[in-house]
Amino acid sequence: MSTLITGIAELTTNEPGGPLRDAAVVLDGDRIAWVGASADGPVADERVDVAGRAVLPGWVDSHTHLVFAGDRTAEFEARMAGEAYSAGGIAVTVDATRAATDEALAANLLRHTEEALRQGTTCLETKTGYGLSVADEQRSARIAAGTAEEVTFLGAHLVPPGADAESYVDLVCGEMLDAVAPYVRWADVFCETGAFDEEQTGRVLSAAAARGLGLRVHGNQLGEGPGVRLAVEHGAASVDHCTYLSGADVEALASSDTVATLLPACDLSTRQALAPARRLLDAGATVALASNANPGSSYTTSMGFCVSTAVLQMRMTVAEAVYAATAGGARALRRQDVGRIRVGARADVQVLDAPSVTHLAYRPGVPLTAAVWRRGERMRTERPPLG
Amino acid sequence: MSTLITGIAELTTNEPGGPLRDAAVVLDGDRIAWVGASADGPVADERVDVAGRAVLPGWVDSHTHLVFAGDRTAEFEARMAGEAYSAGGIAVTVDATRAATDEALAANLLRHTEEALRQGTTCLETKTGYGLSVADEQRSARIAAGTAEEVTFLGAHLVPPGADAESYVDLVCGEMLDAVAPYVRWADVFCETGAFDEEQTGRVLSAAAARGLGLRVHGNQLGEGPGVRLAVEHGAASVDHCTYLSGADVEALASSDTVATLLPACDLSTRQALAPARRLLDAGATVALASNANPGSSYTTSMGFCVSTAVLQMRMTVAEAVYAATAGGARALRRQDVGRIRVGARADVQVLDAPSVTHLAYRPGVPLTAAVWRRGERMRTERPPLG
Ligand SMILES: [Zn+2]
Ligand SMILES: [Zn+2]
Repeated sequence: MSTLITGIAELTTNEPGGPLRDAAVVLDGDRIAWVGASADGPVADERVDVAGRAVLPGWVDSHTHLVFAGDRTAEFEARMAGEAYSAGGIAVTVDATRAATDEALAANLLRHTEEALRQGTTCLETKTGYGLSVADEQRSARIAAGTAEEVTFLGAHLVPPGADAESYVDLVCGEMLDAVAPYVRWADVFCETGAFDEEQTGRVLSAAAARGLGLRVHGNQLGEGPGVRLAVEHGAASVDHCTYLSGADVEALASSDTVATLLPACDLSTRQALAPARRLLDAGATVALASNANPGSSYTTSMGFCVSTAVLQMRMTVAEAVYAATAGGARALRRQDVGRIRVGARADVQVLDAPSVTHLAYRPGVPLTAAVWRRGERMRTERPPLG
Repeated sequence: MSTLITGIAELTTNEPGGPLRDAAVVLDGDRIAWVGASADGPVADERVDVAGRAVLPGWVDSHTHLVFAGDRTAEFEARMAGEAYSAGGIAVTVDATRAATDEALAANLLRHTEEALRQGTTCLETKTGYGLSVADEQRSARIAAGTAEEVTFLGAHLVPPGADAESYVDLVCGEMLDAVAPYVRWADVFCETGAFDEEQTGRVLSAAAARGLGLRVHGNQLGEGPGVRLAVEHGAASVDHCTYLSGADVEALASSDTVATLLPACDLSTRQALAPARRLLDAGATVALASNANPGSSYTTSMGFCVSTAVLQMRMTVAEAVYAATAGGARALRRQDVGRIRVGARADVQVLDAPSVTHLAYRPGVPLTAAVWRRGERMRTERPPLG
C-alpha cells in the first residue's frame, strides 16, 4: 500500500536545505519512499491532496510518565491558588498506581497515547516510576512496553515513603533492574535535592549501563545541581528539565552528545522559570522539547503547546522549536528513523491546518492537526464520541 | 425539539451556589428550560449522556477583529526572531482588506467563526477597523453583521497613511459613523500613543454615544495612558488590553460598571507583560478574557488558551478565569442571556472531555471541547476534511 501526499505548501524535512515548497511525499508500507516536487509526484495506490497545507514529521515526545492511575486535580488547583497542599505529590500517584489493575493501567496509557496521536505525536517514550517496588516496577515496565515505543525504567523516581534511601538504591541497582530489563531500553534517575543525590545517581547510572541500558537523567529542575554533569559524564542520551544551569553545565552539554530536553509545560504548570533555551542553542547544544506528560507537574500531551511556548516565551525560533520537538526528540532517544522526512525514514507525518509551521506559534491553542500517518497508516484524528 | 444533557460531573452555571455535581440540563428550542440533579432529569425529545464530563456555558469571546484579508506570518516570524520588520503592521491588513471581495471577506470571517465554535465559542464579537474609509468601514460592518452576533465599529483603529488625524477623526465622528450605524451595536477607539490621543478618543466616544451606540475602548496596551479613565468616564461597557494600569485606573475600574477585558494571547504574541489580573480582581473589578483574534498581534481563536494562560501565568484561579471567559465576556457585551446556565438563558453549552473545568489549565494545549450546543442546536466539532 502506497500513498502520495501532494499539494504540500511547506514540507519540513529536518534535512539540509531547509523546508521544501510545493512538495510531495510518497509513503510505501511503513517507510517514506520518495520526497520531491509536487509536480513530479509518482503514481501511488492512493493520492491525498493536502491543498496548500504544511506537512512535517510527527512529533517525537521523548519524555512522558503515563503508566499511572489516580487523579491529582485538587493538588493542581491548590498550587494555582497559591495554597500549600498537604497530600503528597508523587506518592499519591504511587498509591493509586499500585492499587490499579493491569487492565486499568494499560487502558489509561492507551487513552493518553491516542490523545497524543490525535495531536500529531507518532513516537512516544514513557517511563515507570509510580511502582517503586520490584513487582510494581516490573508490572509498569511490562504494561508500558505493550503500548509505548520507547520505555524507560525510573525506579529511581523517589525513595518510597518509609524506605531507607541507601537500601532502596541497592534494590533499584540490583533486583529491580533485573526484573524490568526485559521490557525497557532506558534507565533514568531523578537527580535532585529531595530525590537522589550525586553518589546515588551515579550508582544507578553505572548499574544500568552495565546492564546495557541507555541512560537518561532528570536534572536541574528545581535548582542547579550535579544532574547535567553526571548525565554528560555517563554518556546519557538526554538530560531533562535543565531549568537551572551553570555556565559549566551549558558548556558540557554543548560539547557532548547528550541532548538537553526542555519541558516548558512542566515549568509553567509548576510556576517555575522557563528553561534557558536560548543560552543552550547559542552555545551549540542540541535541544529537544517534550511534554513530560504526568498527572502531577505537567498533565498535557500537547507537543503543539510546548512548541508555541518555546517560541512565544523562550525565544526559540519556530524552526528551532519544531526541530526540537521532532528531530531533537529523536536524538534524545538516539533514533535515526523518526523525526525526519527522508527516503527510508519511518512514514510518520502530520498535516497542519495551516500553510506553514509558523502557525503553531502564531495561532497558540488552536488545534491545527489536520491528519496524521504513523508507520504509513492514516490515523484517526477525530475525538471518540461522547458516552 | 428538546434535549436532556445528563451525567454531568460538574456543571458550571455562573450562578450563586457554585458549580453543581451530578447534574443535568434541558435545552428546549433555543433556551435552557431546566437545570437540576441528574437523577431528576425530565423526559425530553433527545437524551445525551455525557458520562461524567464537565459542562459549562459556551465561551463569550467579546473582542476579535475578524473582518480581514491577507497574511502577516512573515511579520510574526520576524518579531519572534527579534528582528525589526519594516512592513507596516495594521496598514498591511488594511490594504489587503480593501482589495478583497465581499465574498472573500465573508468567507474568511465565517471560517474563523466556525473554528472558534469548534473550540466552544458560541457568542462572538467582531470589529471593523481594516477599512478606514467610509465605504470600506461600511462594507466591513455589513459583512460582520452577516455572521457575528455583536459588531463593533472601529474606524478609529489607526489614522490611515497619508490622512490628517484631525480631519480623519471628523470623518469617523460624522459620515463614517452614519454609514456604519445600521450594522453595529458598539463603537470602539484605539486610545494609545501613535493611534488616537485623549481629546480625539473623547470626541469619538461622545459622537458614538450620541448616535446611541454602546462604547468600548482599546486602552493601556503599550503603556499607561488615558484609555481606562476615558472608558470609565464615558460609561463604556469595556476597556480592553489593560496591560499597564495606574492605581487610579484600577480603582476607577473597581468602582464602575466598565469591564476590564484582558487579552493574554495578545500579550504573549507581542512579548508584552501579561495584564495585572490579580490586582484588578483583588480590587473588585470585573474581568473578562477574550482572544483579540486578529492577523497581527494575536492570531488565535482559542479561548481555552486564554483561560490556561490566565491560570498558569496571571494567577487567576480556574473559577475566575472560566467566569471571565463566559459571564465576564457577557458583561463586557452587556448581555444577560449568554455566559450563564440558568432557566431562560440561551442554550449555549459546551461539554469538556474532562471531569472538571480545572482540566482547562491542568491540561494546557489539549483540545478538550467534546461537544457544543448553540441556541439549542448541536454544532459540528469535527474539523472539515482535507482538500
Ligand atoms: Zn519527568
Ligand atoms: Zn483589539
